[in-house]
Amino acid sequence: MISKKISNNLANSSMIRAMFEEGEKLRKLYGADKVFDFSLGNPDPEPPAEVKAALLELANSDELKMHAYMPNAGYPEVRETIAQKINNETGLKLNSDNVVMTVGAGGALNVVLKTLLNPGEDVIVFAPFFVEYTSYIDNHGGNTVIINTDFKTFQPDPELLRAKITPNTKAVIINTPNNPTGVVYSSDTLTRIAKVLEEKGQEYGNTIYLISDEPYRRLAYDVEVPNVLVIYRNAIMIDCFSKSLSLPGERMGYIAANPEADDIKTLMGGLIYCNRVLGFVNAPALFQKIVAKAIDSSVDINIYKERRDLLYNSLIKFGYECVKPDGAFYLFPKALIPDDVEFKNRAMKYNLLIVPGSGFKGPGYFRLAYCTSLQTIQNSLPAFEALAKEFK
Amino acid sequence: MISKKISNNLANSSMIRAMFEEGEKLRKLYGADKVFDFSLGNPDPEPPAEVKAALLELANSDELKMHAYMPNAGYPEVRETIAQKINNETGLKLNSDNVVMTVGAGGALNVVLKTLLNPGEDVIVFAPFFVEYTSYIDNHGGNTVIINTDFKTFQPDPELLRAKITPNTKAVIINTPNNPTGVVYSSDTLTRIAKVLEEKGQEYGNTIYLISDEPYRRLAYDVEVPNVLVIYRNAIMIDCFSKSLSLPGERMGYIAANPEADDIKTLMGGLIYCNRVLGFVNAPALFQKIVAKAIDSSVDINIYKERRDLLYNSLIKFGYECVKPDGAFYLFPKALIPDDVEFKNRAMKYNLLIVPGSGFKGPGYFRLAYCTSLQTIQNSLPAFEALAKEFK
Repeated sequence: MISKKISNNLANSSMIRAMFEEGEKLRKLYGADKVFDFSLGNPDPEPPAEVKAALLELANSDELKMHAYMPNAGYPEVRETIAQKINNETGLKLNSDNVVMTVGAGGALNVVLKTLLNPGEDVIVFAPFFVEYTSYIDNHGGNTVIINTDFKTFQPDPELLRAKITPNTKAVIINTPNNPTGVVYSSDTLTRIAKVLEEKGQEYGNTIYLISDEPYRRLAYDVEVPNVLVIYRNAIMIDCFSKSLSLPGERMGYIAANPEADDIKTLMGGLIYCNRVLGFVNAPALFQKIVAKAIDSSVDINIYKERRDLLYNSLIKFGYECVKPDGAFYLFPKALIPDDVEFKNRAMKYNLLIVPGSGFKGPGYFRLAYCTSLQTIQNSLPAFEALAKEFK
Repeated sequence: MISKKISNNLANSSMIRAMFEEGEKLRKLYGADKVFDFSLGNPDPEPPAEVKAALLELANSDELKMHAYMPNAGYPEVRETIAQKINNETGLKLNSDNVVMTVGAGGALNVVLKTLLNPGEDVIVFAPFFVEYTSYIDNHGGNTVIINTDFKTFQPDPELLRAKITPNTKAVIINTPNNPTGVVYSSDTLTRIAKVLEEKGQEYGNTIYLISDEPYRRLAYDVEVPNVLVIYRNAIMIDCFSKSLSLPGERMGYIAANPEADDIKTLMGGLIYCNRVLGFVNAPALFQKIVAKAIDSSVDINIYKERRDLLYNSLIKFGYECVKPDGAFYLFPKALIPDDVEFKNRAMKYNLLIVPGSGFKGPGYFRLAYCTSLQTIQNSLPAFEALAKEFK
């Protein structure tokens, strides 16, 4: 009796969750330490000490109204702290009015899409991608238009983008560092994308927004993640503290825009309005203050780097093909047979839990989330090696 | 360049916010203690001691993964605690599978509506009502159908409801204790509504859901708030801790359903799915644990009762007409002239900030939120009296 669309979606629902349940079965059968679960992107390092200190300080404080409503956009001083951090990193001139605190990055994306989309407008994404984007776009009446990246580098091609833009294109979503590939979009790529959006926007007399979803921005190992707000005036930056501070359960994110964006006042007003009417109302109070106090801290990203290096180098040694990722906590190697779902099933025989690339519109590949201890990765290597041998 | 609908809505946006800004002006002009602000429903008592104790305990604990993702529906043990509390109060047999933790009641309503609505289906509400419902329903492609309550009692008329139900009716939203009237729907009213929904559902061969939004459930002064899950099998109960524990900024609520509801498994699966794809993902982690630890505590509701009594009795004495509210922290008296917006402006000359009933589809009335100290109420009384005299 529920919505037909939701009922259908439920039936086809998340491959990742299904994997999780299959994993539970294997864990019961063989013991947790014998199952190598690379399926879930749930950050496992504890939050940095600054987070715990901030939580304790606030728990001990006698401050009144600490859990009351604040302006729907979030505490002005928290938004100002974030604006200043962006300014320090970029030389831009944001202030608190250019930042809206949100219920995580997922909440932020929904707020942005609700704010921007008229019914039936197109939003372009580059595959492979986090497929929840499709649901988010559909929530607000938009169409998802998919453009493949070059699967040799997973960088998007700005000229393919140019060819796909029509007067019906409202926005482009990018995700860098990327889930599922771990790739960071280069400054050159972003600059060329910006140029395309600027030119096509001028041609059609409208604004084409670049929505940059950056939950992994602080998890980059060998490169700097360029800031899109500097590169494109009409970029909308989405960030959260789920990965940088290992706080995914607390749902704390934000939206930032360039003060020079077209009609910035209406844009920010729309974001605040949509944050309210979508039922988020405001980002959780206490953790707004905590992330502001811990704004300059981060989980130790060397934990992730060490895992990436071990896993990547081992896979290459075993004969897998894989683009070396610069960030996030994912590898996206090529499956050893074209059918990635069958490949996932074959991996499971070695107690390896991996996600087929099809779940990210990247068929023929598979995703490994290395939110798992170095020891588990070490222990899993013989399984990856045996799996590779099976297909030689 | 943003969505046309959002841009228009922004232009007509919340009367309550506009009031807030006018209030700020008055406060600057006359001093905060000379302005009597009854416009905002922001609970002012501090959370009970149990909340602070739970926060401190968790802040001091060495528990790992305290801020990690948990199942999208929320921690099973927190959901079980809530299920058991409902069972103790009702004799029903809920378990953790019948509860989904949500980002406040606003989030819960959006999750429920997204789960239920096919495009163009009707949702019935009883006026006066919290007009955000209209936005929530529209977010998910539904139509709002408004039925007036009897303005002499603000109780809905089940026979008027029967006349308005069509095969296109998916759900009815009620809100008890009610914002803006403070009225609690009687057990008799609810039982008759349930009978109508049952009969019309049978007639049309579908399920008509009763969505009961109950953020003020624990703020009832002279009566018990009946539990809809007992009265109607296909009721969906929405509750939050914003008022009962004075935690509105933390966004903690839940959805509960009766295990005997039609196709309960699909319903709950849909709710969990929509909680995820709307971008909430899960209710904030730490405060889930805090509300479970403080589940049997409450703000001192005598604080509110005392205010209600003083304000209500005084208004009646000054000649205002008002239904005596049994709960929430609102009064909804009749304006002394038919034009409630003009009446709001006249009240402002006495530094009284009130919200016109039109903002709740209750024209000719006005809302007073007594989330303000007893002293402020005391000090405001001469202003209410003078205002009444002006219209004698």
